[in-house]
Amino acid sequence: MPRYALKVEYDGARFAGWQRQTGLSTVQGAIEAALARLEPGPHSIAAAGRTDSGVHALGQVAQCDLPRDWDPARLCAALNHHLRPLPVAILAGARVQGDWHARFSATARHYLYRIASRRAPLALEAGRTWQRRHDLDLAAMRAGAAHLVGHHDFTTFRAALCQAKSPVKTLDRIDIAEVETPTGPEIHLAFAARSFLHNQVRSLVGTLERVGAGAWPPDRVRDALAARDRTACGPVAPAHGLYLTTVTYPETPFG
Amino acid sequence: MPRYALKVEYDGARFAGWQRQTGLSTVQGAIEAALARLEPGPHSIAAAGRTDSGVHALGQVAQCDLPRDWDPARLCAALNHHLRPLPVAILAGARVQGDWHARFSATARHYLYRIASRRAPLALEAGRTWQRRHDLDLAAMRAGAAHLVGHHDFTTFRAALCQAKSPVKTLDRIDIAEVETPTGPEIHLAFAARSFLHNQVRSLVGTLERVGAGAWPPDRVRDALAARDRTACGPVAPAHGLYLTTVTYPETPFG
Repeated sequence: MPRYALKVEYDGARFAGWQRQTGLSTVQGAIEAALARLEPGPHSIAAAGRTDSGVHALGQVAQCDLPRDWDPARLCAALNHHLRPLPVAILAGARVQGDWHARFSATARHYLYRIASRRAPLALEAGRTWQRRHDLDLAAMRAGAAHLVGHHDFTTFRAALCQAKSPVKTLDRIDIAEVETPTGPEIHLAFAARSFLHNQVRSLVGTLERVGAGAWPPDRVRDALAARDRTACGPVAPAHGLYLTTVTYPETPFG
Repeated sequence: MPRYALKVEYDGARFAGWQRQTGLSTVQGAIEAALARLEPGPHSIAAAGRTDSGVHALGQVAQCDLPRDWDPARLCAALNHHLRPLPVAILAGARVQGDWHARFSATARHYLYRIASRRAPLALEAGRTWQRRHDLDLAAMRAGAAHLVGHHDFTTFRAALCQAKSPVKTLDRIDIAEVETPTGPEIHLAFAARSFLHNQVRSLVGTLERVGAGAWPPDRVRDALAARDRTACGPVAPAHGLYLTTVTYPETPFG
């Protein structure tokens, strides 16, 4: 059967995460239901990153196998039609080789975490950005982040229920920047790695936030990492500030 | 009574506009109700721009008179507490002179209009950005906009129910730019003028969108302006892409 890659955007607030779960509204479930309107099912799609409940995506990548040949643009339009009014959009589609896999062929995942540091509630970006009512010291956060980049055992920053075989990962990049958005200034933390452990980004953000707030000296991040102990981690940052932005492949399927 | 200036952010989608209306949820009504929790009412506040239903604000400015002396930061915090869970936030407050007026002392208003040009539905920015499914030619839009900047009779771009005494206004600036936002690329139209007519920005945006789409040559904007005839206007752009961003005063009250 022809295989298709799909680039997917969604508002995580409205879903119990990516992965199909009986009785819950999930992104995978919504896309599989839309596929069943196009071709008789059941359908079972796979994604590059199985985002948790509340986590948003700007460029999740999924794959599906369909019995018929579809023009990718028509497939996207038909899926978007059947996904309405759910906040999921198929941004792009492409025919891929049968040995291409959305998850296993991916060479890097990129995540963005958005923080707004201000006293007043967020009237426009509530549910999209994590609000902190104190100032954050970006230089201290960058100093803390420097301990995390590289090849490490990330046991400290991994959810208890993480199913990855090894806690050892290579974190390629943490960029921390003040950014002007249409709705005001934010602090953005951008993460890149081949793959991440479950809850790793949110654990790292929650820990670096403590550094930015002055509650943790930057070097405590190094000690926490070295401890290889979940209890050494800072608080886990909430899901609603997190976005899966891009998935990288040896060759982009979307041209 | 001491007078206070308030800088206000709101999500226009949840309100029937700024202005108090019996039986409808409005921003003015919400803030006056919150004020009544602090000081016995009735309260009657005024704003720099009486935004229409659906129009957002990042920096609306309002004024209120209160019998007691309030520390501005405490006033903001108390109002934000009583405004919950409505999507309105008081970003800043300041004590001002009794002859200062949020509307009449203002020397300029700044509006932003957000457009997303893409085929796929907006999963994250629906209700925040106007989606156009075709490409927009920014150079053509800028050529059209050049006819509008300056001192003109804007009868063509004014709502039938506009109550302004004169249709003659000076439009200081229309900046049109492609902007990278956290959720993807957008086209931003930024407008500045001492004051605007009712529906003027949305009428201008809807007209310039026709130019960007190639349906109108840029010079037709000049002809439409010269016609001084409402029927010569392009379609009025929807409220949900519009933001009142900043109000300028001879001296900023917020320091």
